Amino acid sequence: MRRILLVLAAAAAVVVAGAESVLRQVTDVPTAVSSGVSDADALFCDSWRLSVETANAGPWRTVPARCGASVRAYMEGERYASDSAVAAAESLAFAAQAFASGVGGAMPAWVFDVDETLLSNAPYYAVSGWGLQEFNETSFDAWVDIAKAPALPSSLKLYNELQGLGFHIILLTGRSELQRNATEENLLFAGYHSWEKLILRQISDIGKTAVQYKSERRAAMEAEGFKILGNSGDQWSDLIGLPMATRSFKLPNPMYFIS
Amino acid sequence: MRRILLVLAAAAAVVVAGAESVLRQVTDVPTAVSSGVSDADALFCDSWRLSVETANAGPWRTVPARCGASVRAYMEGERYASDSAVAAAESLAFAAQAFASGVGGAMPAWVFDVDETLLSNAPYYAVSGWGLQEFNETSFDAWVDIAKAPALPSSLKLYNELQGLGFHIILLTGRSELQRNATEENLLFAGYHSWEKLILRQISDIGKTAVQYKSERRAAMEAEGFKILGNSGDQWSDLIGLPMATRSFKLPNPMYFIS
Repeated sequence: MRRILLVLAAAAAVVVAGAESVLRQVTDVPTAVSSGVSDADALFCDSWRLSVETANAGPWRTVPARCGASVRAYMEGERYASDSAVAAAESLAFAAQAFASGVGGAMPAWVFDVDETLLSNAPYYAVSGWGLQEFNETSFDAWVDIAKAPALPSSLKLYNELQGLGFHIILLTGRSELQRNATEENLLFAGYHSWEKLILRQISDIGKTAVQYKSERRAAMEAEGFKILGNSGDQWSDLIGLPMATRSFKLPNPMYFIS
Repeated sequence: MRRILLVLAAAAAVVVAGAESVLRQVTDVPTAVSSGVSDADALFCDSWRLSVETANAGPWRTVPARCGASVRAYMEGERYASDSAVAAAESLAFAAQAFASGVGGAMPAWVFDVDETLLSNAPYYAVSGWGLQEFNETSFDAWVDIAKAPALPSSLKLYNELQGLGFHIILLTGRSELQRNATEENLLFAGYHSWEKLILRQISDIGKTAVQYKSERRAAMEAEGFKILGNSGDQWSDLIGLPMATRSFKLPNPMYFIS
């Protein structure tokens, strides 16, 4: 545990310095990730990734072993950034039209998830195997406490554009209330500001699926007078369940699955 | 109109002969489709295609002009086949587990859409610009009447596997009741057989969206005692709307959008 914290502290320092290549050298990266991507694996793994993004894939615990190198290449290359940017552009196009159409007396709102939506934990996953290994809550919580996850650039741009249009921005995350301070600190570090509210899991939410917890909170928002026009999340469990936003936007995430 | 029919008749003959390359030479293919794919276009168009598959893209009428060559390359290359095969494999994995779990006294059912799900209209789209041009109902109906669309290979395999498991197979298509004979003839030509029922749009369905029409028919299936465990379609409008199947599977289609 002490070693993990030291590694993550080093990781955070390196991220701040922008020298991500150094970060990847400080830990033991699984062999599969270090190797290249064969043509057959690239074809299969792109199709597997699509099946994750369309929710065709059922619940999964780790990235398939043969897809480790492919997921790393996707996350580090231009494709992740491009896919995220197109999702943001589609979001803004809808938002501008929806806002102009009006929402009666309601308060127009946009819901954002946090991890892999507003903030990128790529520096953490770079040192923990890009999803090849099962989720380690201890080391991830240590990374959260460091509060140095960078913004997903296209999400920061969208966030600012939505605020410019006049949307109320509500952040709805599966992180615990115990992580409120670190989360707020990290969001500010990454460039986000002036959110309407930041909703985290309470003790009473323990044991609920993300679908149940987030649906309940969306229902509460509507009861408070918000009209949820848009919802951005990297998991389908951020988006499905009633009530849904008028339009939901799935951001890419081939690294992990939350039900 | 006569020319379109002649072209399609020629197309069908060529498809039967398996010489698809000849088919593509018989008509005027838009210039953009004939050109290569630049790196920038490939990156954007792959992201655009993902946005279509995840339903991030709003309603759209034609493939973006810069993506014509990319869509053609996707459909003709190994990626479309691979994406379809992985979707079918995820479907079968779920189906086997769901069937084993039982459905009480209900009849376990799987719903399939027809176009770009069981049957591939790629030969038609190859001669009409791969989605760059707006849908032409007259020429598409002429293609349907020829009844020579091939099976999507991974769907035919899944169809047979589901029948082997004991599923009731229900086909639910946006095609008109007037196209029943041609559709049945085409399905048999492509290798499908022994479906429970083939549901087509009636006169009373004119003006309904696909979501409304297909949701109503799924509700009727449930009222008849079917338990819809799975639903396969290339459009989100095949899959969403209540009641939904226990699991829905989105097959790829970058060529057109149906609301």
